[in-house]
Amino acid sequence: MPDVKPCSVVSLLTDFGLHDDYVGEMHATICRIAPQVRVINHCHDVPPGDIVGASFLWTKGYDYYPVGTVHVGVVDPGVGSDRGIIATDIHGHIFLAPDNGLLAPLLEIHKPERVYSVENRELFLSEISNTFHGRDIFSPVAAHLATGTKIEEVGPRIFSWNEEVNIDPVTWEDGLMGRVMWIDRFGNLVTNIPESLLINKRVRIAGQFPRLVKAFYEGRLGEAVYLIGSKNTVEVGIRDGDAARTLGVGVGEQVLLVN
Amino acid sequence: MPDVKPCSVVSLLTDFGLHDDYVGEMHATICRIAPQVRVINHCHDVPPGDIVGASFLWTKGYDYYPVGTVHVGVVDPGVGSDRGIIATDIHGHIFLAPDNGLLAPLLEIHKPERVYSVENRELFLSEISNTFHGRDIFSPVAAHLATGTKIEEVGPRIFSWNEEVNIDPVTWEDGLMGRVMWIDRFGNLVTNIPESLLINKRVRIAGQFPRLVKAFYEGRLGEAVYLIGSKNTVEVGIRDGDAARTLGVGVGEQVLLVN
Amino acid sequence: MPDVKPCSVVSLLTDFGLHDDYVGEMHATICRIAPQVRVINHCHDVPPGDIVGASFLWTKGYDYYPVGTVHVGVVDPGVGSDRGIIATDIHGHIFLAPDNGLLAPLLEIHKPERVYSVENRELFLSEISNTFHGRDIFSPVAAHLATGTKIEEVGPRIFSWNEEVNIDPVTWEDGLMGRVMWIDRFGNLVTNIPESLLINKRVRIAGQFPRLVKAFYEGRLGEAVYLIGSKNTVEVGIRDGDAARTLGVGVGEQVLLVN
Repeated sequence: MPDVKPCSVVSLLTDFGLHDDYVGEMHATICRIAPQVRVINHCHDVPPGDIVGASFLWTKGYDYYPVGTVHVGVVDPGVGSDRGIIATDIHGHIFLAPDNGLLAPLLEIHKPERVYSVENRELFLSEISNTFHGRDIFSPVAAHLATGTKIEEVGPRIFSWNEEVNIDPVTWEDGLMGRVMWIDRFGNLVTNIPESLLINKRVRIAGQFPRLVKAFYEGRLGEAVYLIGSKNTVEVGIRDGDAARTLGVGVGEQVLLVN
Repeated sequence: MPDVKPCSVVSLLTDFGLHDDYVGEMHATICRIAPQVRVINHCHDVPPGDIVGASFLWTKGYDYYPVGTVHVGVVDPGVGSDRGIIATDIHGHIFLAPDNGLLAPLLEIHKPERVYSVENRELFLSEISNTFHGRDIFSPVAAHLATGTKIEEVGPRIFSWNEEVNIDPVTWEDGLMGRVMWIDRFGNLVTNIPESLLINKRVRIAGQFPRLVKAFYEGRLGEAVYLIGSKNTVEVGIRDGDAARTLGVGVGEQVLLVN
Repeated sequence: MPDVKPCSVVSLLTDFGLHDDYVGEMHATICRIAPQVRVINHCHDVPPGDIVGASFLWTKGYDYYPVGTVHVGVVDPGVGSDRGIIATDIHGHIFLAPDNGLLAPLLEIHKPERVYSVENRELFLSEISNTFHGRDIFSPVAAHLATGTKIEEVGPRIFSWNEEVNIDPVTWEDGLMGRVMWIDRFGNLVTNIPESLLINKRVRIAGQFPRLVKAFYEGRLGEAVYLIGSKNTVEVGIRDGDAARTLGVGVGEQVLLVN
């Protein structure tokens, strides 16, 4: 396997929000170690602890970045416990995440050759808090990886990891069941149902059968519609409205494909 | 007309918010095409679909950027419809927007020599979703324009566009009527009334006549006051308070100039 | 005293929020004057006017940045009044703040040799609004300082300044009283009580005695616990819960150390 060539870009995906200085301290830490690295906020408003939602965003979004990007994911309710931190590279992109399933879907889809346990304290800050590994471990390791430290230097290769998170639809009775993976700021419900599964099926959510449209502007006022959204999956929305609120639906809601 | 010299800066103005990964994917896309380009988040919390508010921010704010900046505006409720996308340059700044009026005030004020319809698919991502042209069209076109692609390469020159949006005060009975164009995080009401119209006039909003001050700290507790704000227009506020909530006023509220 | 070597990094700490274009206009202004400078959003969601909270974040966080960073703090309810603006350098970091106490804790702790009054209008924008010195004064001055303008050029040296803000615990009856300085997005209560004061003491807040843990994951469901957080001070939280809401506690709440 050829070495990954870093491109001096780090992307951040967390549930830290932007209310606090947590993201600022991550940027600062990366900048102090590697001033030439560019840091992109992929998303910081993952609902607190929503590992499934974050892994969905990561899986659908990483490929918009340049090859060589170091992708840092910190949705980490177990911070300070003995949960590990893992690193891998996939098609030239490097990923860093707590070993809590956040990286499981990407590992399952792409089956990268090598996965590492991040243990090399020389790459960490000298003082490690029990609550903010995003700043004390993830940021400095990412800064080093983005500037040429080889991934095998982060720690030993491992052969098993947390595989609990699944972001694919599952079989259900005689059909398929997906879920709402993300609710966006417009109240659109982003599901994990890809276009390929829709043939001759109807979409049912919250007891309703939304109508298929090409874009939301085609919906009638107040009418729930669905379309293939920007992640190539079914999205349910209401033109100029808020589908989550109107349908009373939250993250994790079942979405059924029925005949 | 001399060519615009890009300065490798792209500014983003959208109603996407920062809850989702939409802005992250735009940054990623620009970075992948043009790693040397710097992307500045001008504002992403335009109220969903508020084309008027966004055009007001753009008109008042673009000039703080370096000449050569590519300004991307995506407030685009008609995404996926046959609404066009337009580009122009104004005093050395390049603008990209859906043809829904977002750019109308700047076009009306500055009457640039040339306006183009953005149609050159070679500048787009290879796959175009129906819901997220911000990522699939605006970002790659901006990345190309910021790194030397000439504006006339985006598509054919056009001679008419959506002119529906107006951000100037209008005549009303025997006086003038402005509007609240933006409500800021402090609850201050930013209007479109310039200082020059205030001579011998009183400002009336929500049935009240706020008092003119130089800065908000001069207000008394709970008292509605107004001043000339940072956009050189009338702003109504309450010291240490929230004028929008206290006066029960939203975006679009009438502001009258009376004798 | 040797000159500070700027590192072309500016950090921003404000109460402007990210709803408006205020932060965007600051980035634009810095970029226009000094395109090579990197601007890091340290935190913009300081509660409006919360000078104490902002000074706490600054004191705990500045050191994560590279030496030579220009730190801009704008929590400035007195903007437009005759309050001054001050600048100093501390261990090679430059600070700019309104003279309202925001910089007082850092000045008290580090006692820098020289403090300046920012008055040199040649470093400001040519037009100065009465409401947005963040854009019109702080940003351009920071851009100049980050690119080589010497700090003594900002204005005359001064020997007194607003010292009103204190972020240390104070004595109380026969013990010590700290305060909640910040509430984070998870509802954790960040206090100003350092680890060193905890010996043989119990922590009391809102009539409760939370249990000491190493990390929040050790808490039982719904149980208030405390730990030494990422700022090396006591933090009170609830695993997978919101301590601020559950305990009914806001910023400024007393935290007592009792036997």
